[in-house]
Amino acid sequence: MTHKLAFIGFGTVGQGLAEILRDKGDTLRNGLGFEVQVVAVSDLMKGAVYHPDGLDVARLLEVVQSTGRLDDYPDTPGLERGWDSLKTICDSNANTIVEVSFTNIDTGQPAIDHCRAAFGCGKNVVMSNKGPVALAYTELSALARQNNVRWCFEGTVMSGTPALRMPLTALTGNEITEIRGIFNGTTNYILTQMEDEMEYEDALKEAQKLGYAEANPAADVEGQDTLGKVVILANVIMNVPLRKEEVSCQGVSHLTVRDVIEAKAEGKRWKLIGRVKKEGDRIIARVGPEKVRWSDPLAGVMGAMNAVTYVCDLAGPVTLVGAGAGRVETGYSLLIDLINIERGAL
Amino acid sequence: MTHKLAFIGFGTVGQGLAEILRDKGDTLRNGLGFEVQVVAVSDLMKGAVYHPDGLDVARLLEVVQSTGRLDDYPDTPGLERGWDSLKTICDSNANTIVEVSFTNIDTGQPAIDHCRAAFGCGKNVVMSNKGPVALAYTELSALARQNNVRWCFEGTVMSGTPALRMPLTALTGNEITEIRGIFNGTTNYILTQMEDEMEYEDALKEAQKLGYAEANPAADVEGQDTLGKVVILANVIMNVPLRKEEVSCQGVSHLTVRDVIEAKAEGKRWKLIGRVKKEGDRIIARVGPEKVRWSDPLAGVMGAMNAVTYVCDLAGPVTLVGAGAGRVETGYSLLIDLINIERGAL
Repeated sequence: MTHKLAFIGFGTVGQGLAEILRDKGDTLRNGLGFEVQVVAVSDLMKGAVYHPDGLDVARLLEVVQSTGRLDDYPDTPGLERGWDSLKTICDSNANTIVEVSFTNIDTGQPAIDHCRAAFGCGKNVVMSNKGPVALAYTELSALARQNNVRWCFEGTVMSGTPALRMPLTALTGNEITEIRGIFNGTTNYILTQMEDEMEYEDALKEAQKLGYAEANPAADVEGQDTLGKVVILANVIMNVPLRKEEVSCQGVSHLTVRDVIEAKAEGKRWKLIGRVKKEGDRIIARVGPEKVRWSDPLAGVMGAMNAVTYVCDLAGPVTLVGAGAGRVETGYSLLIDLINIERGAL
Repeated sequence: MTHKLAFIGFGTVGQGLAEILRDKGDTLRNGLGFEVQVVAVSDLMKGAVYHPDGLDVARLLEVVQSTGRLDDYPDTPGLERGWDSLKTICDSNANTIVEVSFTNIDTGQPAIDHCRAAFGCGKNVVMSNKGPVALAYTELSALARQNNVRWCFEGTVMSGTPALRMPLTALTGNEITEIRGIFNGTTNYILTQMEDEMEYEDALKEAQKLGYAEANPAADVEGQDTLGKVVILANVIMNVPLRKEEVSCQGVSHLTVRDVIEAKAEGKRWKLIGRVKKEGDRIIARVGPEKVRWSDPLAGVMGAMNAVTYVCDLAGPVTLVGAGAGRVETGYSLLIDLINIERGAL
């Protein structure tokens, strides 16, 4: 059966997935029997189109990338225009909503409402938006379960690197007593540059120039981005209802080149580490810079790369290293969610 | 439904799994709904017991670890003794065969015959024995498929670290153009020690003392163990029917402390790398020492740890680091196979 998708939002991540579907659609169909169709796109700024028999993905991308307006998508019999996000979620014939509207890490909106609406209408949701998972995991995962639909969000932690699916599928049966990692590429890039004696401010400017850091980099360098990921890992992987407020958080902006060089002389590296640990019945979660020994796999993670270590009672420590952001990588995170929904697998 | 297991062989790995089932059986039952029962153990040296309603795992371990003979397992009504491996595979009521007999990497026997028998009788097989997968993947995977049973062997590469299941479940949809890694803990331990100016021969002796290296370490240090894993990854993950004979292979025994120190001065480390790469229609596979840059995640893998990098067209390079051997770790590799058979998942 063809898997029908409605995109809510059509920015970088949504277009990233659409490009993959355009470029690799035949390979996915022939290789995996994975047949998808985009039936709707609804974007607050760019407009909306819906056709129950499917839209032409190449044309959607062409139109949006040349004029920025879905109004320029050509008319065909049966095409509907102007549906807002909630109407698209509920009234389209999509099986799965690709929720790629904007991220608000403080409120999780409008994505939380989009999830509620989708689950209520019996539709799956895939997303890479941290907000709803970090803020409303308990509510939304229960709602999805009650409505017998899937909610997948691999891309919320380390984009297309399977920081969530890997432990769920391949480390089950272990007690995972601790998760620690490098979850923010901007700060890791800055710390890597500082090792070559570049001052913090200059390294930050370079990260911004390379597109790693936002114009307002506070969420990166003050640790809030990492904190959101720690909350997600605690909830999803450790099954602990940890809330944002329970995580102590410090950023890296106070570190100097001297600190970085001194650590190097001790055989260590400063890294911005997010960690959550079970100690008896207590859960200890924090974000902050730590001096990591070179013998730790996290110490070798350089530049904008991310990494996570799961400390397992049976398998030992297992570390995953990979991209933590990127248009194609995050687009892929949505694809792997869709493939596993189709497979009926985690 | 209770998953019934028959163990063929009951050495280190089999006992490793049995200990996990003894110690974590309740947790697995309550947490995952995973209910297993050991109905048979047949070991060429230690003897054999079978009971269709299940054996007492704690008692099996106690008996084998104190006397080494399953004959000392107590009599109960309905208990059968002395069944050989093929009779146990075919005539017991097990759903799944835990194939943990001895490994012969040159012939793959007797494990290949055990697989053929099990599949023919409609039984799943889990194993951590490289032989059958490296030598007979095409035949045996087809046979399992025809008989509608599962054949899982996570532990054949990197023991309980999910070097096979992770890419199958969480990187699908990517074209994986290259796989490279450190697949032998003994050689990696030796190379790590040589960095501290310990000579090769002394480092090897230490590895043997610590139980990393076999008394005859040739398969480790000459690269044959790594080669087997490269063949498995090519077949299972890249879907390429690579054979042992097609892989060029060099070991590490010619490396000197001077080579290792010189590499360090260049910002590199010698590692025994196994790799398989697609170049157009060609497949290039080789095993040999390589100087890896410190910025490569493989360079930071020290001591007896293993690691693998999958180069993906969409997700980018994804690296997994973890244990490559060990009683509990390899026992766990069989458990995760069993859990995913039970789930009907990859």
